[in-house]
Amino acid sequence: VDFDERLDEYYIDLPEPLSPQGTAVNAVRTGKLLHIGGVPPLSEGRMIKGRVGVEVRTDMAGKAARAAAMNALAILRSELGGTLNKVKRIVQLQAMIACGTEFSEHLRVLDAASDLIVQIFGPSGKHSRIATGAISLPGNAVVQLSMIVEVK
Amino acid sequence: VDFDERLDEYYIDLPEPLSPQGTAVNAVRTGKLLHIGGVPPLSEGRMIKGRVGVEVRTDMAGKAARAAAMNALAILRSELGGTLNKVKRIVQLQAMIACGTEFSEHLRVLDAASDLIVQIFGPSGKHSRIATGAISLPGNAVVQLSMIVEVK
Amino acid sequence: VDFDERLDEYYIDLPEPLSPQGTAVNAVRTGKLLHIGGVPPLSEGRMIKGRVGVEVRTDMAGKAARAAAMNALAILRSELGGTLNKVKRIVQLQAMIACGTEFSEHLRVLDAASDLIVQIFGPSGKHSRIATGAISLPGNAVVQLSMIVEVK
Repeated sequence: VDFDERLDEYYIDLPEPLSPQGTAVNAVRTGKLLHIGGVPPLSEGRMIKGRVGVEVRTDMAGKAARAAAMNALAILRSELGGTLNKVKRIVQLQAMIACGTEFSEHLRVLDAASDLIVQIFGPSGKHSRIATGAISLPGNAVVQLSMIVEVK
Repeated sequence: VDFDERLDEYYIDLPEPLSPQGTAVNAVRTGKLLHIGGVPPLSEGRMIKGRVGVEVRTDMAGKAARAAAMNALAILRSELGGTLNKVKRIVQLQAMIACGTEFSEHLRVLDAASDLIVQIFGPSGKHSRIATGAISLPGNAVVQLSMIVEVK
Repeated sequence: VDFDERLDEYYIDLPEPLSPQGTAVNAVRTGKLLHIGGVPPLSEGRMIKGRVGVEVRTDMAGKAARAAAMNALAILRSELGGTLNKVKRIVQLQAMIACGTEFSEHLRVLDAASDLIVQIFGPSGKHSRIATGAISLPGNAVVQLSMIVEVK
């Protein structure tokens, strides 16, 4: 299976990879594992902000999760030298979701990111996942995604 | 040491492993590491809900942490083909705990899960751990546990 | 490069490694990866407490992040048998920050820890990172740091 072709097939146009902040880097590879740090939901250069269950609706938070996944995939492709075809397995997706105390649909928000990844990678994209509520996130983002990927 | 026998010895009866939600899976193995995603405190099919330090007491949250650990162990055993004897080491336990702003006893809550794991695995069960407060969790769970396990 | 000499050069005097709590351990090594659990901002035996954006200012939270990083490095050196020279790469730094709902400068807080690590390890210290807001942390700490390190 050609994951880069999958992007074309589904008209998925990944953004430029974000610049890392401060003294950090976007991702570190050790052995066959690539750890991608927390990625914000920047869409066309604008941060999707707010808290789900307070001033942001669940479907908009899902859009934010998808935007963060797009940025994470852009970083992943860049780290792998311009191709997604070196992905062996998406190991884990962790979503931090800024929300209110009564919010309970974290997994529905994360589904938007999970579904994109499984659409592209098929069985190799089936990941374990963690979704939790954060009182606030860097830059007041709605969602922040981090990822562990096994590389061929 | 036979970890499966340990379960019998201590009358620990693991539940059925939970069904994964959406397009995700419960756990992914890469090399010798198994990453188990966020596991909820389902006990006899019912979610233990609420926030510690608000409407849930610390001892009840400990019961929830133990219930989540039981579910995580059921997933672990299932991923290892029906036996815990392939566990080499419990590497890390991460607990997200839904709580109030003044709550400080996260580690006492997590102890209930940690103690169960060390009871079963002995020195191989001694793990590093992270416990933090979440504003809310999927399904309004009190606790969510994730785990990294080294496999033989 | 000699990382232990770097400490002397910059007059960085690491504290004694903290004692692990309950049945847990500070860190677990599996293969070439060392997972260090959540480390609190203890400075000269006193916990730096409170929430950023509520009763703690961002610069004080940065001091807490640096204190937590000092404790994490003390654990790291102890786990490596008394030397930092076995560090191949700092893979990931995860900061949980106790804060208010409007706080947005999580990365500025984490910078204080990141900068210390890059000062000591240079390019080998460049790490991926995750910073999120917690409603509360163990012992009412302002910051909690966890770390993944690749060992030579």
